[in-house]
Amino acid sequence: MAVGPGTLPTLHPVAGFRIGTTSAGVKTPGRKDLVVMEIAPGSATAGVFTLNQFCAAPVQICKSHMQQASASYLVVNTGNANAGTGKEGYQDALDVCQAVADQAGVELAQVLPYSTGVIGEKLPTDRIITAVPAAFKALTADGWLAAANGITTTDTRPKAWSEQFEYQGETVTLTGISKGAGMIKPNMATMLAYVATDAKIESCLLQKMLSRSADLTFNRVTIDGDTSTNDSCMLVATGAGNVEVTEADAVLFEQFNTVLDKVMLELAQAIVRDGEGATKFVTISVEQAGSSEEALKTAYAVAHSPLVKTALFASDPNWGRILAAVGYAGVENLDVDALQIFLGEVCIVANGGRADSYTEEAGQAVMSEEDITIRIVLNRGDQSETVWTTDLSKDYVSINADYRS
Amino acid sequence: MAVGPGTLPTLHPVAGFRIGTTSAGVKTPGRKDLVVMEIAPGSATAGVFTLNQFCAAPVQICKSHMQQASASYLVVNTGNANAGTGKEGYQDALDVCQAVADQAGVELAQVLPYSTGVIGEKLPTDRIITAVPAAFKALTADGWLAAANGITTTDTRPKAWSEQFEYQGETVTLTGISKGAGMIKPNMATMLAYVATDAKIESCLLQKMLSRSADLTFNRVTIDGDTSTNDSCMLVATGAGNVEVTEADAVLFEQFNTVLDKVMLELAQAIVRDGEGATKFVTISVEQAGSSEEALKTAYAVAHSPLVKTALFASDPNWGRILAAVGYAGVENLDVDALQIFLGEVCIVANGGRADSYTEEAGQAVMSEEDITIRIVLNRGDQSETVWTTDLSKDYVSINADYRS
Repeated sequence: MAVGPGTLPTLHPVAGFRIGTTSAGVKTPGRKDLVVMEIAPGSATAGVFTLNQFCAAPVQICKSHMQQASASYLVVNTGNANAGTGKEGYQDALDVCQAVADQAGVELAQVLPYSTGVIGEKLPTDRIITAVPAAFKALTADGWLAAANGITTTDTRPKAWSEQFEYQGETVTLTGISKGAGMIKPNMATMLAYVATDAKIESCLLQKMLSRSADLTFNRVTIDGDTSTNDSCMLVATGAGNVEVTEADAVLFEQFNTVLDKVMLELAQAIVRDGEGATKFVTISVEQAGSSEEALKTAYAVAHSPLVKTALFASDPNWGRILAAVGYAGVENLDVDALQIFLGEVCIVANGGRADSYTEEAGQAVMSEEDITIRIVLNRGDQSETVWTTDLSKDYVSINADYRS
Repeated sequence: MAVGPGTLPTLHPVAGFRIGTTSAGVKTPGRKDLVVMEIAPGSATAGVFTLNQFCAAPVQICKSHMQQASASYLVVNTGNANAGTGKEGYQDALDVCQAVADQAGVELAQVLPYSTGVIGEKLPTDRIITAVPAAFKALTADGWLAAANGITTTDTRPKAWSEQFEYQGETVTLTGISKGAGMIKPNMATMLAYVATDAKIESCLLQKMLSRSADLTFNRVTIDGDTSTNDSCMLVATGAGNVEVTEADAVLFEQFNTVLDKVMLELAQAIVRDGEGATKFVTISVEQAGSSEEALKTAYAVAHSPLVKTALFASDPNWGRILAAVGYAGVENLDVDALQIFLGEVCIVANGGRADSYTEEAGQAVMSEEDITIRIVLNRGDQSETVWTTDLSKDYVSINADYRS
């Protein structure tokens, strides 16, 4: 189940970036489950990773390698997360990196590994290493869609986005792919995202830009509040185009960030729309908060409330549950008489209770839509935050309970 | 659905405390839904209440009345929570208190109100006020079981416990009842608990004792993390027996607290065992933590993880999900190689991954039980905390999604 059509736009190739997808048979024989991405020399690479302290071996190696060298290759397998695998798993991930380094004639630290799939099972390194030459043979600038399919686990469809904009007569391209939200997939860890641009961007600035954008996009989506051991989001700037992005050129900097945010948000929201058992795509916006922190606290309290999520699944305008979640979000000295809550354009809560103007019919009309916005106006400041989530359906429980049975 | 037999012990009457249960037809005609409790003069009453800032009208009035006077009557209705009802709801709750005060010939502030049921609908005060004389007529020291049934909403069975102990030849009695956990019931707010003892205990001390005990019992159970607008837990010491509990008599003080904790824990755990759609009763114990706070953070991360809860429902020893939840609990500088996780007596995680000794069969044997203990040994201090919860079943979603449909 997934919300919306999931139609993909044209995926523009990014100069200086090639992708090869092949089959290693990690979990399923014949499945195209190994992706190698090749980054042209002189590129900059930035990454943000899971905050889960049980972070998987590949995540640990990514962080370490990025401090030692500029990345030349990314290698991604599905079918096995190589998480909770201890020292052996760490060595396994290094072995895969070494095979890629040997094939390409680069240093070990120039290769960054990513794994997604079942936690706690040994990575079948032999099968992966055997398939590395085929992945190299498949390398092409047009490999985005194949890779979008290749990195999925139990996603029901591929996720990709692409944008171009003109700057002083030159075209700048940003293209990216993503998969699986947080731990929405049973025993299948990992949100992965890879975005590349042909703009030239200095490495430290690129990291700052990625962190800022991820915070507004990938860090604002939630399915069930579970954070995987393998989440990684990468941004590569090849510089193979004719445009350099610097903070000094404020207009271009702003324009690039806006387009980057658009690509990142599309990739992040695609993950929510394909959330486990999702039947609704829900935007929760908290406005007029005293701080960004209290806005987020409130938004996540609503987004994670099983009672709100089951009401969303039932298309039930159960405003009492939303009100209660706002009440326990932990905002200090909340004036419950001053805040307002809206379902779409319909005011459901005002003056500490159900809004006088509210009718069940009006609430029901909003709740029957696939895309629903819950807007909470705290009326105590000027900070706003938005998060995106899904409902909690019977399918969510079935998928997660039945997976290993 | 509920876990365990739910057998009730003999419910000893408490001298100085009488209970009358009758039918007011708040929501369902003929349903015994109105309970009045009468507290003998000279008693002390303590209470702890929901931290939800949208706290319902009766909760606000309870707190206010307790500051003004000693309680003589508690009046509880089911079928309507009188929450999210604004100023009108506040006046409605006062009107019910006034009717009880008039009937008894006491001051308004000597009456404390409690409501549980649907949020956001007007309290039918006329029907409740009409039934008050019948509740008074029903007052009896043997009214505990009738009241345990009377305060339920969608609970599948009544919850009550009773203990007695001897002190210097005198018998001390503690008896109590409870209902519905947090917001486990769809649109049915409220955990309510009432415990009475015939010991004499000074008011300020009683409040301290209740707060301490509630923190170890009712504040350690969780179904879905939702906190209701109406939660209330009351402790009455009538002093009608021959024993006075003071801090000066350390042996008695200790003994009383131990029995109080026992009664409170039985009432709290009974709520979890009767949680919505519950098929498992789960104890999550975090040991050797650096602080009580990080122990609780870890325990609640596991207790609230939808992935852990669905695995529990499926009786699936999915240790990767427990490990991941521990990893994102927010414990700073967690040494993942140093900690251990046990399912019952079976070590599932050690040295940063699946324990070498672990077998799927051993894990499966534990997970197939109705009562399951997850023990997480952080190995970084000497603090321990325990919380209790349920699994997340298909019935949980059905009950919460279908309720208003």
